[in-house]
Amino acid sequence: MWYQTEIRLSAKTRGFHLITDEVINKLPEIQNLNIGLLHLFIKHTSASLTLNENADPTVRQDFESYFNHSVKENEPYYKHTYEGSDDMPAHLKASLLGSSVTIPITNGSLNTGIWQGIYLGEHRDYGGSRTLVVTIHGE
Amino acid sequence: MWYQTEIRLSAKTRGFHLITDEVINKLPEIQNLNIGLLHLFIKHTSASLTLNENADPTVRQDFESYFNHSVKENEPYYKHTYEGSDDMPAHLKASLLGSSVTIPITNGSLNTGIWQGIYLGEHRDYGGSRTLVVTIHGE
Amino acid sequence: MWYQTEIRLSAKTRGFHLITDEVINKLPEIQNLNIGLLHLFIKHTSASLTLNENADPTVRQDFESYFNHSVKENEPYYKHTYEGSDDMPAHLKASLLGSSVTIPITNGSLNTGIWQGIYLGEHRDYGGSRTLVVTIHGE
Repeated sequence: MWYQTEIRLSAKTRGFHLITDEVINKLPEIQNLNIGLLHLFIKHTSASLTLNENADPTVRQDFESYFNHSVKENEPYYKHTYEGSDDMPAHLKASLLGSSVTIPITNGSLNTGIWQGIYLGEHRDYGGSRTLVVTIHGE
Repeated sequence: MWYQTEIRLSAKTRGFHLITDEVINKLPEIQNLNIGLLHLFIKHTSASLTLNENADPTVRQDFESYFNHSVKENEPYYKHTYEGSDDMPAHLKASLLGSSVTIPITNGSLNTGIWQGIYLGEHRDYGGSRTLVVTIHGE
Repeated sequence: MWYQTEIRLSAKTRGFHLITDEVINKLPEIQNLNIGLLHLFIKHTSASLTLNENADPTVRQDFESYFNHSVKENEPYYKHTYEGSDDMPAHLKASLLGSSVTIPITNGSLNTGIWQGIYLGEHRDYGGSRTLVVTIHGE
């Protein structure tokens, strides 16, 4: 069984956002699989997908603080500067975190750990709506 | 062909550990596939999976040193501090390295390079046993 | 439908290289799929694969600058030093960026965003030719 669709996420502020429910609620097809994989892919180069702690909002705040310290704006060696000071760091953060996640499906549900949620990393100041390609396959 | 199981890894000390044999020895199903993919997924947000050099143990030691310098404990801007000074860095390391690896299967074996091994990144001081979801599919 | 092959990339200088065309031109099989996934896997521990901006070459230059600042050569704590000062940073960069990318296939084409391209991160001074394992599956 293969199923594929695109999901358009609501526009988010710069930072890390828990999007598990926004994504999963649009994918009842997961319930049809006993064994399978969910592949989420973001069609952008300045936003990212990753899995992390789904309970305490300060974890997402600390993610934003850490990545802003680790991938600074206005580094003197940046040459790609004409799209704004937030642009080149956004590209770097996107590759550090990744543009897709693959999650196992077991008995009709995502087989994640109890504390795992899906994060959108919005790395632009005004990134707007982001589009995901969802691919589900299994049996 | 789809096959899925969970593997419980023995508890490991903080650092990077080569787990190729511990994982593969439990998966004779790989031998049944001519072409396929092995997906390994860790059900935790403070440990990670990655592929890297499988020969010299000092590479894994240098991984631990690098990530401890790059993602420091007790940063003044951390707000998520109540689970211990190793906790927030562990979450960050987990997302930098990733929670899953996907490895091609060819003619009944993993088709990795000769120097590639599977690393568990144990980022907590006392992380305990970690659980992987293994999904194998192919033909 | 499963299809698997290996692609040997031409040797590249140290840095980040857009390889979308070099890879896709060798994979007409993508056109046979309505829904599917392309998995690209690099069989090396000192080079990486990632997706990022495909238009402005200075983005790739800034990637090289950033990763050289973020993962320095000759750190006093490195123990794995006998393969040259570029070796241990190359291993670290490879795990930060990752050894594979998974890209959705839709109606016979890669379903990437308009600005997304496939990067090879060549992290050694003289890495030579690199080999990818390509796995395509879908329907």
